[in-house]
Amino acid sequence: MSRFWSPIVSKLVPYTPGEQPKDRSFIKLNTNEHPYGPSPIALGAIRAATEDSLRLYPDPSAGALRATIGASFGLGVDHVFAGNGSDEILAHAFHGFFSGKDKLLFPDITYSFYKTYCELYGISHRSVPLDDDFRIDPASLGGPCGGIVLANPNAPTGIALDLAAVRSVLEQNPDVVVLVDEAYVDFGAESAARLVPEFDNLLVVQTFSKSRGLAGLRVGFALGQPHLIEGLQRIKDSFNSYPLDRLALAGAEASWQDTAWFEETRRLVITERHRMAEGLRSLGFNVLPSAANFLFVSHETRAARDLLTGLRDEGILVRHFNKDRIDNWLRISIGTEEEGEALLKVMAGLVAG
Amino acid sequence: MSRFWSPIVSKLVPYTPGEQPKDRSFIKLNTNEHPYGPSPIALGAIRAATEDSLRLYPDPSAGALRATIGASFGLGVDHVFAGNGSDEILAHAFHGFFSGKDKLLFPDITYSFYKTYCELYGISHRSVPLDDDFRIDPASLGGPCGGIVLANPNAPTGIALDLAAVRSVLEQNPDVVVLVDEAYVDFGAESAARLVPEFDNLLVVQTFSKSRGLAGLRVGFALGQPHLIEGLQRIKDSFNSYPLDRLALAGAEASWQDTAWFEETRRLVITERHRMAEGLRSLGFNVLPSAANFLFVSHETRAARDLLTGLRDEGILVRHFNKDRIDNWLRISIGTEEEGEALLKVMAGLVAG
Repeated sequence: MSRFWSPIVSKLVPYTPGEQPKDRSFIKLNTNEHPYGPSPIALGAIRAATEDSLRLYPDPSAGALRATIGASFGLGVDHVFAGNGSDEILAHAFHGFFSGKDKLLFPDITYSFYKTYCELYGISHRSVPLDDDFRIDPASLGGPCGGIVLANPNAPTGIALDLAAVRSVLEQNPDVVVLVDEAYVDFGAESAARLVPEFDNLLVVQTFSKSRGLAGLRVGFALGQPHLIEGLQRIKDSFNSYPLDRLALAGAEASWQDTAWFEETRRLVITERHRMAEGLRSLGFNVLPSAANFLFVSHETRAARDLLTGLRDEGILVRHFNKDRIDNWLRISIGTEEEGEALLKVMAGLVAG
Repeated sequence: MSRFWSPIVSKLVPYTPGEQPKDRSFIKLNTNEHPYGPSPIALGAIRAATEDSLRLYPDPSAGALRATIGASFGLGVDHVFAGNGSDEILAHAFHGFFSGKDKLLFPDITYSFYKTYCELYGISHRSVPLDDDFRIDPASLGGPCGGIVLANPNAPTGIALDLAAVRSVLEQNPDVVVLVDEAYVDFGAESAARLVPEFDNLLVVQTFSKSRGLAGLRVGFALGQPHLIEGLQRIKDSFNSYPLDRLALAGAEASWQDTAWFEETRRLVITERHRMAEGLRSLGFNVLPSAANFLFVSHETRAARDLLTGLRDEGILVRHFNKDRIDNWLRISIGTEEEGEALLKVMAGLVAG
């Protein structure tokens, strides 16, 4: 505490990201990074941009990147917003669209940063419980509210809603923004991007951190009708004119265009996810049906905390959330086949021991 | 306007950065970029970091960069905050320290983003007029207030306050945060960094965009006692866990360590500033005494707007602010000697014509 802090700073409970170890080499299955890394073409584009022009400010509007992304969805540049990771875009969206009087709705089990944004911007909110199978009931997301946030696939469960369910949430709530956070969508869910022309209340947020293998570059984007994109631009231009550096702009654009690398590596992740799910089930785990690049698992007899510690002792990091309903679960990112084999081997020892 | 915007979004008047032309090659003396570019060692460090590890999130705490910067000021890592350009840090500081009831004070002529931050976070403020010579009277910045923001050197005047004056502002206002924005300090002003151990209400903000030639990389930092740095961290960790990408962290750290390049190139800028100031005075310009990498000038007979247009027609961009008291002034960034010669030549024609 400091007498100089605004009241809001004292009350904040900041989001805690997964550990980024520096001192020791771990098998890192704790932060949903992509095992196959960025497109080599993207790395080449970044190297080409690493020259004297770094003395100049980047394009504050990120016009080229936004146009490239938009075109691939059949949308114009005015339908796309780009930000310093999808977290920054989520923050701006909360600030710009959810500061009304009615409560914002999101599931009780979801990306925990949503609650933090509400604290940061003084947004009142209500948690809508997932059902006993950790599924979102679309009918539960409606009625008078200040907006809706939906991670699809949801985190940390990995369970996806189909497009008909997303559509029904949009139709039930025509007067508030429905934000669909699609950080993991490329690993097996249907994007709501195609609904953008139809719904003026839809904002879709995606990221380069997961399926594009560029968590270290910090690039995300949002799709929506121009009035929503303009709202985000107004916040951004009142916060930081140049959130995306020249290297991020160059790398993201080249990465987006390398569809071959994208398709090949996401398929490898999906294949490995199926293999891991089977392997874990055969060890006595309850494995939720994942459409993401991670599995959410709970063992029939072994406590999640003990498994977390046991894995760490053997050099493997996974993620545990100390929260109601999910404190006996672990989130395991999908790595390479070799990393998966290592995890299964250690797990087999831990559940047998 | 959109029915989905928060009330605050509708009222925002976003900051307008200087033009970044894409279609034509200009002599760009409009955004205070560094003519000599980044340290070659920094470019090498960025290239080395452009590899597979971009699939991993960066260090969310920017620990290595903060420690490196802190050490050079004789301060620990807990006295340093790093952000995605100094604009992001300013935004967090306004949000975290200036949201109280009393009015924030800053000069009437200064970096215009300060007013935008106040609108974004609903902060009440009062402008304190510069004197007739565009100088800040330290005695005018005091009394009951919610905080003080001081650009030193000031923008767009380029005029610096000496350390005794900054000290007196700190002493007059022990109960509020005094933010000293030192974006241009390396070109001729005294940094308040050395006052950090003495004053618990001082926050110094600097950037890599100007004197380090890295406007395209987006890195800034703040120095202050740990309770202020922790306040910024709490905001940052509730907004975006990873504002600095891996390339920015690598490039900034290497740039900071290349003191030879830094000293040599800033001296070139300072020498060229003296030459340009003389040249412009000999053409009938009133040139304010600048401690920055730009000059703020007004001609005795020619209107600033006409000169702006005339320069642009000849392929030279400078900056004009359409604001009370300074609408007959131009801000001219210091470029290379060759660029300066070109500007003086065109100016000579315009004022003679």
